[in-house]
Amino acid sequence: MGFWKFLTGSMELSLLLLLVLAPLCALTAQDRAHKPGHVSVVILGGTGDLARKYLWQGFFELYINQINSGHSFSFYGGGLSPVNKSTPILFEVIKALKCSKDVSQERCAILREQFLRISKYKQLKTLEEYKDLSKSIEKQLKQEGMKEAGRLFYLSVPAFAYAEIADRINSSCRPPNGAWLRVVLEKPFGHDFKSAQVLATQLGSSLKDEEMYRIDHYLGKQVVANILQFRMQNKKHLDPLWNKHFIERVEIVLKETLDVKGRIAFYDEYGVIRDVLQNHLTEVLTLLTMKLPRDLSDSQEVLTNKLHIFTSLLPLSRNQAVTGQYQNYQQEVREELNKTTGFVTATPTFAAVLAHIDETRYEDMPILMMSGKQLDERVGYARVLFKDNVFCLQNQNSVHCKPKQIIFYFGHGSLNYPAILVSKNLFKPDVVDSEWKEVTEHKDKDVTVLGLPISDYYVQTPILEKEAYTELISHIFAGRRNSFVSTENLLASWDFWSPLLTSITDTFPRIYPGGADNKDMLDIFLKGRDLSYVNEVVIISQDHMSGQNPNNFQVMQGKFRNDEMVSGWTEGLIEKLASDIEEAAEKAILESGVFHLALSGGASPLALFHRLVLHHFAFPWGGTHIWMVDERCVPLNDMESNFRSLHDHLLQHVKIPYYNLHPMPVQLNQRLCVEDDRGTWLYQEEIRKFVNASSFHFVLLGVGFDGHTASLFPGVKPEDHGESLVVFTESPSKPHQRMSLTFNALNRAQKVAILMLGKYKHEAVTQLSRVKGETSQWPVTWVKPDGGSLVWYMDYEALLG
Amino acid sequence: MGFWKFLTGSMELSLLLLLVLAPLCALTAQDRAHKPGHVSVVILGGTGDLARKYLWQGFFELYINQINSGHSFSFYGGGLSPVNKSTPILFEVIKALKCSKDVSQERCAILREQFLRISKYKQLKTLEEYKDLSKSIEKQLKQEGMKEAGRLFYLSVPAFAYAEIADRINSSCRPPNGAWLRVVLEKPFGHDFKSAQVLATQLGSSLKDEEMYRIDHYLGKQVVANILQFRMQNKKHLDPLWNKHFIERVEIVLKETLDVKGRIAFYDEYGVIRDVLQNHLTEVLTLLTMKLPRDLSDSQEVLTNKLHIFTSLLPLSRNQAVTGQYQNYQQEVREELNKTTGFVTATPTFAAVLAHIDETRYEDMPILMMSGKQLDERVGYARVLFKDNVFCLQNQNSVHCKPKQIIFYFGHGSLNYPAILVSKNLFKPDVVDSEWKEVTEHKDKDVTVLGLPISDYYVQTPILEKEAYTELISHIFAGRRNSFVSTENLLASWDFWSPLLTSITDTFPRIYPGGADNKDMLDIFLKGRDLSYVNEVVIISQDHMSGQNPNNFQVMQGKFRNDEMVSGWTEGLIEKLASDIEEAAEKAILESGVFHLALSGGASPLALFHRLVLHHFAFPWGGTHIWMVDERCVPLNDMESNFRSLHDHLLQHVKIPYYNLHPMPVQLNQRLCVEDDRGTWLYQEEIRKFVNASSFHFVLLGVGFDGHTASLFPGVKPEDHGESLVVFTESPSKPHQRMSLTFNALNRAQKVAILMLGKYKHEAVTQLSRVKGETSQWPVTWVKPDGGSLVWYMDYEALLG
Repeated sequence: MGFWKFLTGSMELSLLLLLVLAPLCALTAQDRAHKPGHVSVVILGGTGDLARKYLWQGFFELYINQINSGHSFSFYGGGLSPVNKSTPILFEVIKALKCSKDVSQERCAILREQFLRISKYKQLKTLEEYKDLSKSIEKQLKQEGMKEAGRLFYLSVPAFAYAEIADRINSSCRPPNGAWLRVVLEKPFGHDFKSAQVLATQLGSSLKDEEMYRIDHYLGKQVVANILQFRMQNKKHLDPLWNKHFIERVEIVLKETLDVKGRIAFYDEYGVIRDVLQNHLTEVLTLLTMKLPRDLSDSQEVLTNKLHIFTSLLPLSRNQAVTGQYQNYQQEVREELNKTTGFVTATPTFAAVLAHIDETRYEDMPILMMSGKQLDERVGYARVLFKDNVFCLQNQNSVHCKPKQIIFYFGHGSLNYPAILVSKNLFKPDVVDSEWKEVTEHKDKDVTVLGLPISDYYVQTPILEKEAYTELISHIFAGRRNSFVSTENLLASWDFWSPLLTSITDTFPRIYPGGADNKDMLDIFLKGRDLSYVNEVVIISQDHMSGQNPNNFQVMQGKFRNDEMVSGWTEGLIEKLASDIEEAAEKAILESGVFHLALSGGASPLALFHRLVLHHFAFPWGGTHIWMVDERCVPLNDMESNFRSLHDHLLQHVKIPYYNLHPMPVQLNQRLCVEDDRGTWLYQEEIRKFVNASSFHFVLLGVGFDGHTASLFPGVKPEDHGESLVVFTESPSKPHQRMSLTFNALNRAQKVAILMLGKYKHEAVTQLSRVKGETSQWPVTWVKPDGGSLVWYMDYEALLG
Repeated sequence: MGFWKFLTGSMELSLLLLLVLAPLCALTAQDRAHKPGHVSVVILGGTGDLARKYLWQGFFELYINQINSGHSFSFYGGGLSPVNKSTPILFEVIKALKCSKDVSQERCAILREQFLRISKYKQLKTLEEYKDLSKSIEKQLKQEGMKEAGRLFYLSVPAFAYAEIADRINSSCRPPNGAWLRVVLEKPFGHDFKSAQVLATQLGSSLKDEEMYRIDHYLGKQVVANILQFRMQNKKHLDPLWNKHFIERVEIVLKETLDVKGRIAFYDEYGVIRDVLQNHLTEVLTLLTMKLPRDLSDSQEVLTNKLHIFTSLLPLSRNQAVTGQYQNYQQEVREELNKTTGFVTATPTFAAVLAHIDETRYEDMPILMMSGKQLDERVGYARVLFKDNVFCLQNQNSVHCKPKQIIFYFGHGSLNYPAILVSKNLFKPDVVDSEWKEVTEHKDKDVTVLGLPISDYYVQTPILEKEAYTELISHIFAGRRNSFVSTENLLASWDFWSPLLTSITDTFPRIYPGGADNKDMLDIFLKGRDLSYVNEVVIISQDHMSGQNPNNFQVMQGKFRNDEMVSGWTEGLIEKLASDIEEAAEKAILESGVFHLALSGGASPLALFHRLVLHHFAFPWGGTHIWMVDERCVPLNDMESNFRSLHDHLLQHVKIPYYNLHPMPVQLNQRLCVEDDRGTWLYQEEIRKFVNASSFHFVLLGVGFDGHTASLFPGVKPEDHGESLVVFTESPSKPHQRMSLTFNALNRAQKVAILMLGKYKHEAVTQLSRVKGETSQWPVTWVKPDGGSLVWYMDYEALLG
C-alpha cells in the first residue's frame, strides 16, 4: 500500500498503471512455458542415432537448467521396439550424459542419477499405447498433486511416420486445457513444394501451427542464432552499410570434406540443394537480410519478416545455379543401392546458387549460396563482402583500400571456432551479449580468414561453445518459435527452390575429383545475374552420360501454316524471343523514337518477362509503350487481371515511364466494362493517338486449347467487329467478360509473335497444322498481319508432344 | 557498258542500283571538305602562346598531309598588333616548325619554305580590315583561277572577344555559296549555364551551329580519341561487361604536380571543376558511357548519343563532391592579384565528384571524376574497374580472383606513354586500328599500373605519338564535328555542372600541403551515392575562415503561427523532412499496411524528391500510395503537369506499383477538365475507396507569394466547397484551370507539412506571421488539420530573408 501511495502521489495514475501493469499483461506463449508445473518430454525414436548423440544430452542440460524453476519433469524414450530391448540402451545413454564445465563431477553424478529416475522407455506403436502414455501421465500428476504445464513430443523418426504419430498425439495424448503441447519435427519436411504442402496439410489436421516446432539445427548454431542480435547491437554502424550500395556480395558457404557413404539411400533422393541449401543456407540468408524486428523476442514479427524475404526472392532460372558431383559418387551409389554398372545418377553433391532479393535495398546484390561434399576443407560461414569503395589517391596499399568484410564463422576451417569477425577498417562492433567475449589474443597469429590475417579483424566468440541441439531444446522449452521453421516459411522456401530443382533435373552435374584435387574446377563466375563455372573444361567421367543439356541444342527455324516458325527447348526459345523483341525495340526506337509493344496475359509469357527482366538490362524501356492485347473485366490490381500479372512480373522490375503504360480501361466510373462508359472507344482512341497508323511494332499472342487468341473465342469472325480496334467479348470461362483487340487491330501490326509452350499445347498445335486457311473454329487462324510478319514460337514439347 | 551488262545479267537491277549508287549519294559535310579548292586559314591571336606552341605546327602538318589532295591553301596570322610588329614574330615561328620523323630534313626545309610563302600576318581589328581580308582572298582566287573550298577561322583569343569577331566574320568575311565556313573556338565557353547560354546565343546570331568548332583538346589526345573505336572494335567482349552488373566503378582522373602560378587571374575565377571536370573529364565520361553509334564517322549520331548521356546524368548534390586547395594557393593569389593579407579565396584546386547515369544499364554505377593541382604525380587516365565477381573455392590467389580493369592511359605517370591496357584475365582486345600497335616487350618490366604489374595487362599504344592540336586541326579540316563540343552538348554539360558549382560556393575547400605530403589526406570514400574524404582530420590553415558549412548548423525547432516549425539550412531541412516522411511511412505501414502520401507540384519539393531517391533506399515505396494535392488541366505527360514533374523526379526512380499512383483525372474522354466528365467526383470516390476515413497519412503543401496553397487561391473559403474533397478551381496564372483538394480534404490529414524554401518566400513568411487566425486573403491559413498536426518546414532564407 505504501508503494502505491508513494507512486500515485507523484505521478499520474493512468500512466502509472500502464507502467506497472504492462509487464504483467504481456504474458505470451513464451511466458506460459515458465508457469511452474509438470512437463512430460517424449522422444520418439528415443534410442535412435540422433537421440543418442544429441537429444538426451540436450534434455539433460535443460533439466539441469530448470532444476530450480519450480518445474518438474518426466522423460520418455518412445519407440517401436519392446521395453525390455530398449530400456537398457536408454539407460546406457543416460549414464554417459555430461554436464557443462561449471558443474562439479560429484554434483553431475547426482543430477544424472535424478535424471535417470525420471526417465523411462515406453513402447509407442499402437493407438492404445499412446492412450496408455496419456493415462499414466495423468495418473502420476494426480498422485503427486501436480499441475500439468505441458507435453513435448520430439519426433526423431522418419518423416513418413509424422502424420500418423501426429494424429495419435492429437486424438489420445493431448494435455488438458491450460497446458501446452509442442511437437518437434526433424527435416526432411518434404521433397518439393507439393510434398511439403501435403505433409503440412496432414500435420495441420492434427496439430495447430503454434504446436509444431520444425528443427533446422543451423538455427541453433551459436553464430547463426546471434546474427540478428549482432545486427541489432551494431545497428548504428550497419544501418548505412547494409544495402546494395555498400555490399559487393553475400556468400553463404558450407564446405564439407566428407563423402555421403552410408547415407546414400537418403542422399541420392535429395542431393545437396535439398539437403543443405533449401534449409540451412536459406535460413542464414533470411537472418542476414530480413528487416530487423523491433523486438527480437517477438517470434511472430521475426517469422513475418523472414517470410517477407522468402516472398521477395526473385525466381531462380537454371542459369543461376551450377552443380557438381564428386567422381566416386556413382560408384558408391551402385554399391550401396545394389545397382548395375549401367546405372547413372544425376544427384548433385555440390551446388552453387545465385539469389537476388527484389527489394530496393538489396536490388541486384548477389547472394551466393554454396555447399558441397568432398571439398578441400570443412568450414561453414556467411561472408558479407563490402565494395571496394575507397579511392586511394597515392598509396594503393593504405588500410582504407584493404578488403572490408563481416564474417559469421559457424566453425571449423582455418579458425576452428565459432566467431563473428569484422574488418578493422569497417568499425569496432559491440559484443553480441554477455555470453560472448572479444578475442584479442590469437593462439595462431598467422592464421588468415578469407583472405585477411586474423589481426585485421575484430573477433568475438561465445564464452562457452554449445551444441546446436542443446540450444534449440532450450528454445523449444521457452516457446521461442522464431528459432524454428514455421509452416508458412517452409512452404515459401520450397516455393522458391522447387522450380530450380525441376529445371535442373535434366542437367548433368560437373564431375569433380574431390578434395584439394578440385583445384579451380569449382571456381564460380558471377556473370551479372547469372552464374557459371569459371573454368570451362569438364572432365567427362566414363560413366557420365553426355546429358540432355538443352543449351546444347540450337534453336531451329522452319515453317508452320506457311508462316515462319522458331522452335527449341523452352529456355532457348524464350531467349530467342526476348532477343527478337529487343531487336525490334532497338529498330523501332532508332526509326521513330518509340516502340509499341502489345502483350498478352496468361502463363506462357511469364518466362519471357523474367528473361527480359534478368538479362536484357539494355532494353530501351524508356521509349517502350506497353499495350494490352486483352483484359478481363476485373479491377487492374485484381490477381486475375492480365495487367496485374504483367505488372508484377515485368513492369515493376524495369524502368518504364507511367505514361507509357496503357492498361485497358475495363474499370470506369467505379464499375467494370459497362458499355455506356465507352471503354473500348477510349482504348481505340488512345491507340489512334499514340500509335502511328494504329500499327503496333510487336504483338505477342498466345493460343488456347480451343484455338482462341487475345480474347477472341471460337465462333468469332473478323467482320463481326467492322473497323473497330477494341471490343468487348464473352469468354466461355470465368471471368466471362473481356475486352480485346480485334483482328483488325492485330493484323495492322508490324510483327506478331504467337507463343506456345508445353506438352499440353501439343494437341492445339497438331490441330492447327491440319487446318487450312482461316476458320472461326480456330480464331487464331484469322491472325494474318496485312503488311507485317507472323512468327510462331513453339517449344519442342508443344511442337512434338 | 560492259560492267553494267555483266552485273545486270546476274542480279536484280533495283538492288544493284542501290548498292552502286548508295556511296555516291552519301556525300556529307565531311566529304565536301575534300572537294578540291582553295582553303584560307586565319589564326586570330596568331602570334599568341597557343598559336606559337601548337597551332602553326598543327596547320603545317595539315598542309603537308594535304599537299597532294588537290587543295591549295593560304594561311593568315591575324591579330590586333600592326603588321610590322607581328610579321617577324610569325616568320620566326614558321621557321621553327618541324616535320614528322618520316619526312627527310631536306624535304622538310622545302615544305617549310613553301608554307612560309603562303603564310602572312594580317592586322584584324576593325570591320574594314575583315572586309579587306575577304576582298584579298577573292582577288587572289580570281587571279589564280581557283575555286574556293572554304575558310577556317581559329579564334585563339580571349572569350570576351568571340561575339564581336564572329559578327565581323559573318557580316564581312563569309565565303561565297558552296564553300564552307568553320570557326574554331577555345574554352572557356562560359562560366556557368547562363553565361554559356548568353555566349551561345551571341555566337548563334552570327554563325550556324555546324560552322562552330569548339575545341576540347582532350578530344584530340590519341587515347581519348580512340575510346569509341576501342569499344567498337571489342564490342563482342565488352557488350556483356559494359554495365552495372560488371563494372564496380569508373574513375576519370587528371592529377597534376604543377601549381597555377602565372595563371591565377584566370584560375581563381574558374577553379578546377570549371577548368578540368566540366569539360575534359566530362567528355571522357560521355565517350566511355554513350551508346555506340552504328557508324563512328556519323558525327550527328555521335553527338546525339553523347547528348543523351548528358541529359541522363543524375543531378549532383553537394554530398557528391569534395574540394581541396593546396596550402600555398592563398599566398600565391594574394601576390599575383595584389590582395591584402585579409583576402581569402575559396577556389578549389582539387575536386572529386561522384556522378551517376540514370539509365538501366548504368544505374547506381559510381563514376568518379577527380582532378587537382600539386598532387604527388602527373598522370591522366580513365579506369574501368570491374567487380570482384569470381568466387575462388580454394585458392584465393588464383588469377581469376585478381582485379580486372581496363585503363585508358592518357599519358605521363608510371607508364609514361599513352596506352590502352586490358587485364589479361578479362580478354585479349583487338588493336584499335592500323596506327596502333600491341606492346609485348616492356622496357621497364617492374612498372605497375594502378595496382597491377604491367605483365598482367594486354597493352596497346599509338605507333606515333601525336599532339592533340595537330590531331584536332586535321579533324576540323575533315569536318569531323564529333571531335568537338556542340552547342547543345555544351549547354547540357553546364546544365549538369552549374547547380553543383552554385551549391559549393559557401563550402571552404580542404587545405592540403601539396605533393607527396598529401599522404592519405585526399583519399576518397564512396558512401553509397555520396562522397567524402576518408580522413576526417582537416588542417586549419591560419588564413582559412571557418567557413559557412551548413552542415555545421543543426536543424532547429520552434513555433510558427502557433504550429510546430522546423528550420535550418536548405539541405539540412530537406534531410529532416525526408526523414520525417520516411518515419511516417514506416509507422503507417506497420499499423495499417499502407501509407497515403499526398504531394504538391512546384519547384520546392524537387530537392526533397532527390533526397528521397538518393538516400532513402529503404523507404517502403511498395506500400506507399501517391496522391496529388492539385493538378493543372494539361495532359499528364505535359511538362507543365504536376504529376509529370513528380514522375520525372521521384516516381520513375523508385519502385512503386502502378496501382499505387493516383494522378488526378484531369483528362477524361480525351478532353481536359470538363465538368460533365466528373473528374472531381471520380478522384473523390478514389480517395474514399482507398484512404481510410479519407484521412491521408501525410500531406505536403507549398505556399505561393499570394498565400495560396494546393490550388486554393485568395478569396476562397472552406464553406465554398461544402463536403467535397476535390474541386475545380481557377488560378490567376496560366494554365488557369486546376483540380485541387479542398480544405476539407487537407484538414482530414494526420500530418500536414508546409514547405517554404528560399529568400523569395521570405515576404510571404513575414506576412503570414502577422496574420491572426484564418483569412481568405491568405488561403494557407485555413489549413488546420482537425485531428492531425501541422508542421512548417522553412529554410533560413525563407525564415530570415
